[in-house]
This record gives sequence, structure tokens and C-alpha cells, in this order.
Amino acid sequence: MARTQGSHSDITGPRIRQAALRLFARHGYAAVSMRKIAGEVGVQAGALYNYTPDKQSLLFRLMRDHMQDLLSAYGEQKQTGDPQDALRRFVGFHIRFHLQRPDEVFIAYMELRNLTPENFAEIEDLRRKYEDGLEAILREGQRAGIFAVADTKIATLAVIAMLNGVMTWYRAGGRLSLDEVEAVYWDMVRKAMTA
Amino acid sequence: MARTQGSHSDITGPRIRQAALRLFARHGYAAVSMRKIAGEVGVQAGALYNYTPDKQSLLFRLMRDHMQDLLSAYGEQKQTGDPQDALRRFVGFHIRFHLQRPDEVFIAYMELRNLTPENFAEIEDLRRKYEDGLEAILREGQRAGIFAVADTKIATLAVIAMLNGVMTWYRAGGRLSLDEVEAVYWDMVRKAMTA
Repeated sequence: MARTQGSHSDITGPRIRQAALRLFARHGYAAVSMRKIAGEVGVQAGALYNYTPDKQSLLFRLMRDHMQDLLSAYGEQKQTGDPQDALRRFVGFHIRFHLQRPDEVFIAYMELRNLTPENFAEIEDLRRKYEDGLEAILREGQRAGIFAVADTKIATLAVIAMLNGVMTWYRAGGRLSLDEVEAVYWDMVRKAMTA
Repeated sequence: MARTQGSHSDITGPRIRQAALRLFARHGYAAVSMRKIAGEVGVQAGALYNYTPDKQSLLFRLMRDHMQDLLSAYGEQKQTGDPQDALRRFVGFHIRFHLQRPDEVFIAYMELRNLTPENFAEIEDLRRKYEDGLEAILREGQRAGIFAVADTKIATLAVIAMLNGVMTWYRAGGRLSLDEVEAVYWDMVRKAMTA
């Protein structure tokens, strides 16, 4: 069956990004050549440039897609006016979203230094937008007298860092179920933020 | 003035490790060759092998030294029987020790995957020893009825992850002094752990 160039590109583009993601996560951006990515996908090195201008664009696209997926998935959460409910939902959402994407998480942290300044600025904007969502919950809770933290910006970063820690140790099928992990972290976050 | 081989080795060994640390942190272990390290130190590539058997040994030595420095610096802290005091000291110690060593912290997280299984196991043992110190404080506090966490192991990892977050955003001379940062984190950790 003949394939149009369009449909071929629709398949190959994502396959290239998947291969780049896997290789960057395993070996690091600097150690992976365009030739190696092409080999993984099974295309000629030259053909890669039909899909992406260069390796920097691949890295940037991976990190931007990850942050945009995060923002859009978080935006789909039910929003209520109750800050305690909203914080609880944030904790569960953040843990589950990131546990499903270990390679993206690793790259998002590790390869920031390999972005060009313009690309770095754009990724930082997206990251800040996500953090602002959590900070808005904390501020709302402060106004309502439910939360009492000395600094909502630092509390935002502290909560996210604490939850990110789950990614370094959690293994499916381990001692605790995901529901139990979520409950244990929620208990600590709730107490840390509460008045 | 003539130098003995001994004194020369005493100077060159640390210089090689410093150069390797800087280069690994900037470019990643996989992207840095022994030739590049030699160039940075200003010796011939072949001469490097008088000081270290290979690149893996260099990486392992950097990570092991970092963990041993951490354990020995923490061991020098005044120990008291009061779990709340001990936890407060841990928070201050952990933040200050790691803020002084951004390259070591970055490598310790990022390059674990590049250790051989034997070297990885040894670094993990040291890391666990450090975590066990914090967990002992939490258990002691649980027994005394001061702390109330659902799981002391997870609470240990959560506190360390939260404090590690400081390394990603703190800059000397910024909005908050180090004492203020320590106080804000201590307030959150104390509340998160407290009954």
C-alpha cells in the first residue's frame, strides 16, 4: 500500500522524538549524535534533517512538549474554590503525571544546561506557569487562614521538590501502592502548609 | 627546584579530580574524554594514567569522596538526645553543606547511571548511611511522641528531596539570606513531621 509523504512524516517525526528521548535519557544529550538517533530509528542520518533542523531543536521540542502536556493535563483537573482540596489534587496529579514519564523528568532536570538561552527562557516560562498554579492555591489558602507558610514562592518550590523525590525511589509493585504513597505525601504536605 | 615524584603526585591528583569534576558537571561524564581532562590540567593524556586507572575510577572517586565528606561533616555535628533539635540541625547542615558543592551535587544525581554496578552499590551504601542518620532522628521523635509521620523511610526521603530543591534556586545575594532560607525550610519540615 502506497504511503503519502504526509502520513510517513506523521509516523517518523514521533519515532525520531521517541528515540532521541530514550537516547538522551540513557547517555546524555552531549554524548548522542544525530547519526546515532538515525540508526535507532532505522533511517539515514541525512534523512533526519527532513524532520528536524538539528539536535538542539529535538531537545527543545522534547522539553517543550513535556511542559505543555503537563500544563494541559493540570488544566483539565476539576478546579474548586477550596484550597485544601485543590492542594490535595495537585499532590496526586503531580506524582502520577511524573511517574509515568521518567525519561522526560530526567531530561527536564538534567539537560537544561544544554539549551540555548532563548530555548531555556521559553522552558523556564512554562515551568514558572506550572509553579504559579500551585502558588495561587497556597495564596488562596493563606487568605482563607487555612495555610500558614512564611513564603508562598519557596513553599511552592519545596512542595514540588518533595514530590519530585518520589520519582527517584518509587517502583510499581513495591512495598507501597500508589494510593498509599499519595496519602503519605499528602499528609506531610498538608501539615507543612497548614496554619 | 627539583620535585619528588611524591609531591608532584600530591598536587596533580587533586588537580585532575578538580578538572574532571568541572568537566563532568558542565558536559556530562559520557561527553568528556580522558584527553580533554588532561588538556584542562595541562598534562599529556598518557600521563593521566599515572594518577588514575581510567575515567570510571575518576567518577567513582569523585562521588565516593563527596559522600564520605558528607558523612564525616555530619558526624562532626553536635549530637543531642532531643529529636527536634537534631532535626533542626540536620536541616541547616544539609542545606549549607550542599550549597557549597553544586558540581558534586549535580554529578551525584546525574551520573549514577554511569557507574559500574559494583561502584553504584558502594555509593548507594554511603547514601543509605546518610539517610539512616536522618531516619534515626525521626524514629526517636516518633517514640517520644513529638513526630507523627506515616512512614519514617518515606519521610526521610521527602525531607532530603525538599531540602535538595534549595540547590536549584538559591543564589547568594538574592532575596533571602541563608539564615532566612534555613528558617523557612525548618518551619515547613518541623510542621510536616510534627504530631
